[in-house]
Amino acid sequence: MFANQQRIEQHIELLSHFTATPGAGVTRLTYSKEDLSARNYIKDRMLEYGLTVSEDGFGNIFGKLEGTIPDAPSVIVGSHFDSVPNGGAYDGTAGVVIGLEVAALFQESHYKPAYPLEIIALVEEEGSRYGGGLMGSRGMMGLLTNESFQTLTDKDGILAVDAMRQIGLDTEKEKLRDPKTMKAFLELHIEQGPILEENAIPIGVVEAIVGLTQLEVTIQGRAGHAGTTPMSHRSDALVAAAEVIAAFPKLAIDEGDGTVITTGQLHVFPNGANVIPDKVVFSVDIRSGNEKHVQNAVRKVEQLIASKNEAGIHTSTEQLLYISPKEMDENIRAIFKETTDNLGIPYCSINSGAGHDAMVFSDFTACGMVFIPSKDGLSHCPEEWSDASHLADGANILFQTALRLTEGNKL
Amino acid sequence: MFANQQRIEQHIELLSHFTATPGAGVTRLTYSKEDLSARNYIKDRMLEYGLTVSEDGFGNIFGKLEGTIPDAPSVIVGSHFDSVPNGGAYDGTAGVVIGLEVAALFQESHYKPAYPLEIIALVEEEGSRYGGGLMGSRGMMGLLTNESFQTLTDKDGILAVDAMRQIGLDTEKEKLRDPKTMKAFLELHIEQGPILEENAIPIGVVEAIVGLTQLEVTIQGRAGHAGTTPMSHRSDALVAAAEVIAAFPKLAIDEGDGTVITTGQLHVFPNGANVIPDKVVFSVDIRSGNEKHVQNAVRKVEQLIASKNEAGIHTSTEQLLYISPKEMDENIRAIFKETTDNLGIPYCSINSGAGHDAMVFSDFTACGMVFIPSKDGLSHCPEEWSDASHLADGANILFQTALRLTEGNKL
Repeated sequence: MFANQQRIEQHIELLSHFTATPGAGVTRLTYSKEDLSARNYIKDRMLEYGLTVSEDGFGNIFGKLEGTIPDAPSVIVGSHFDSVPNGGAYDGTAGVVIGLEVAALFQESHYKPAYPLEIIALVEEEGSRYGGGLMGSRGMMGLLTNESFQTLTDKDGILAVDAMRQIGLDTEKEKLRDPKTMKAFLELHIEQGPILEENAIPIGVVEAIVGLTQLEVTIQGRAGHAGTTPMSHRSDALVAAAEVIAAFPKLAIDEGDGTVITTGQLHVFPNGANVIPDKVVFSVDIRSGNEKHVQNAVRKVEQLIASKNEAGIHTSTEQLLYISPKEMDENIRAIFKETTDNLGIPYCSINSGAGHDAMVFSDFTACGMVFIPSKDGLSHCPEEWSDASHLADGANILFQTALRLTEGNKL
Repeated sequence: MFANQQRIEQHIELLSHFTATPGAGVTRLTYSKEDLSARNYIKDRMLEYGLTVSEDGFGNIFGKLEGTIPDAPSVIVGSHFDSVPNGGAYDGTAGVVIGLEVAALFQESHYKPAYPLEIIALVEEEGSRYGGGLMGSRGMMGLLTNESFQTLTDKDGILAVDAMRQIGLDTEKEKLRDPKTMKAFLELHIEQGPILEENAIPIGVVEAIVGLTQLEVTIQGRAGHAGTTPMSHRSDALVAAAEVIAAFPKLAIDEGDGTVITTGQLHVFPNGANVIPDKVVFSVDIRSGNEKHVQNAVRKVEQLIASKNEAGIHTSTEQLLYISPKEMDENIRAIFKETTDNLGIPYCSINSGAGHDAMVFSDFTACGMVFIPSKDGLSHCPEEWSDASHLADGANILFQTALRLTEGNKL
């Protein structure tokens, strides 16, 4: 029994219509009208594929196929169904659609699992409405307190709980998921990067979701008139910052193993064309699949910045965020690889540079992720696109893996 | 007859009280209450020193001592009396006070000039209220049309003409000054830089007001996710900008002769911590006393920027402003030097890195400028300070020079 590529394509196509910005990509914010339309579509398909549908107190959607072992933990397959503003049709949605396809294949194959199969569609992974991101998974696992959730508002001041009620969701439902009820979490996601496409490899088995640290660097110099201050007398905060930022790419490449360093945000003070800048504040985002590389890179970046301390220049660095790399479950990775080999599909190991719900679940249950290529490496834009044949490959791998983990038997 | 240092100190001290920010430097915006108070003080002193006082349609103040030659052009001495917000007590004001002192010395010496002596106190040199700068001198010389002036507003939308009326100024008065009525313009100003103080030289005879060009550079790269885009696949607009900006100091020093290059303003797009910047826009301010150096530096800066054009990076440069260096009058420079020698005061030649009203007048009449040291090279801040003995030296030099140029005779 193999995935039905046409059915997958149809789900992607129909779900892409639930957007607040038709013709300008998918904009599906959590608890919006478009969320409700997509939610109804997903729940209808779950029912059609023989699942028992429920929602929790965050609006996460679950479709369950009971197993033969009483009260056994579930093998969960899915992803999120919210989007960034003017994003694409695949980020998150692809993983939900593949979950639905796995359920359809269980039904068509007449497999009866020993452990339950659950298809999951999570809310607010992107954080586009309520900030922070990973809200559905973090909330389920108790990493978001009820007090915080009750007072959570979007940029227009609308409470999350009011927005939920507006689309008919019950905010009083159980919010917490007992980790003992989870046997595994499997997620297919688009790569959102160029590696698979460039190497013409249809499947990436994720080894780890990269660790991430974010620094805020402040360089304090001395202001001065752009005309009357000789070059030899300057303590130019922007020149010092520029020397540092220009050196990051080599530092990342030397650290190797896919380590990346990015300055995305930078502010100059006072920011007048004829005034030597006296202060520059900028972000440094450092990521690697290996914690050692993250820590090395942080140390080298901090040393580089500190080396600019001299007469008139004072630097300081604050670590705003540190998330250690999350390794995916070794056993699930092995099953993915064996399954993929059996299906004759080429694959490689890969790290995930972006965060995913599996990052949250990996502290509570065995997690596995599969990536498929992103056209031109693009994501979070209307041009985001993945090939339906790769989606079908991913569905086949997740179906076979779910069969193994649920210990399914043909009836 | 020598300058009265105590009188000079008193003028500086009393005028510094006309500020909108007591205790936080001098804030004297054009056509403000503080402008009116300072204006009345200056006009009173002019009357006291035997001058005939008038104002033009911009509120520039003139105090005239008639000469014996009918309708002869005037030797004008002065500077501006507005300030930047939270500026100091010397920038501009020092030159007005030295003008008043020259008038006092003419009176006390009973000198009767052949050519008229005029003391001038100009409005809005800084551009702190109406932008652009040099408004008083530019207006007088016809470089600001009446239409532009009639519609000129400050950041609160208040028309300049309404603000003038508010403090009792007559907007209908003659605005234009016939250049034929000007024989020379002499201006004392604080250096606003560190050179005189560091070399312990009390007087700088200005050779030229430096030429200035301002470029706006746009570097267009390609956005990407900070986590999923390998270093080898990036077209990071900020890294390209940083490489360029970090190279400016060496480029300026290599060009030499006091050439300065400054990036004071820089904006990053989209400016998110986890997004590789796809666009950076920044200013480049290039100055030199020698036009050849300005042009060389512009060429080298443009070459450096263009060298970043490669796959994924596109650069463009626009020249927003080009002001050629203004040489001060050779004859007046010679008189300054001779006079300074005669007074036994050490001096050096110096370029002005900042713009001054003399820059505007130099296209219409013979101009000369004298600099005195700025403590720690500071200006445009409450700490701005110059020694009263240097002010007195400057007054003596300008008095002797004005005597020569007005062809004054003891009565």
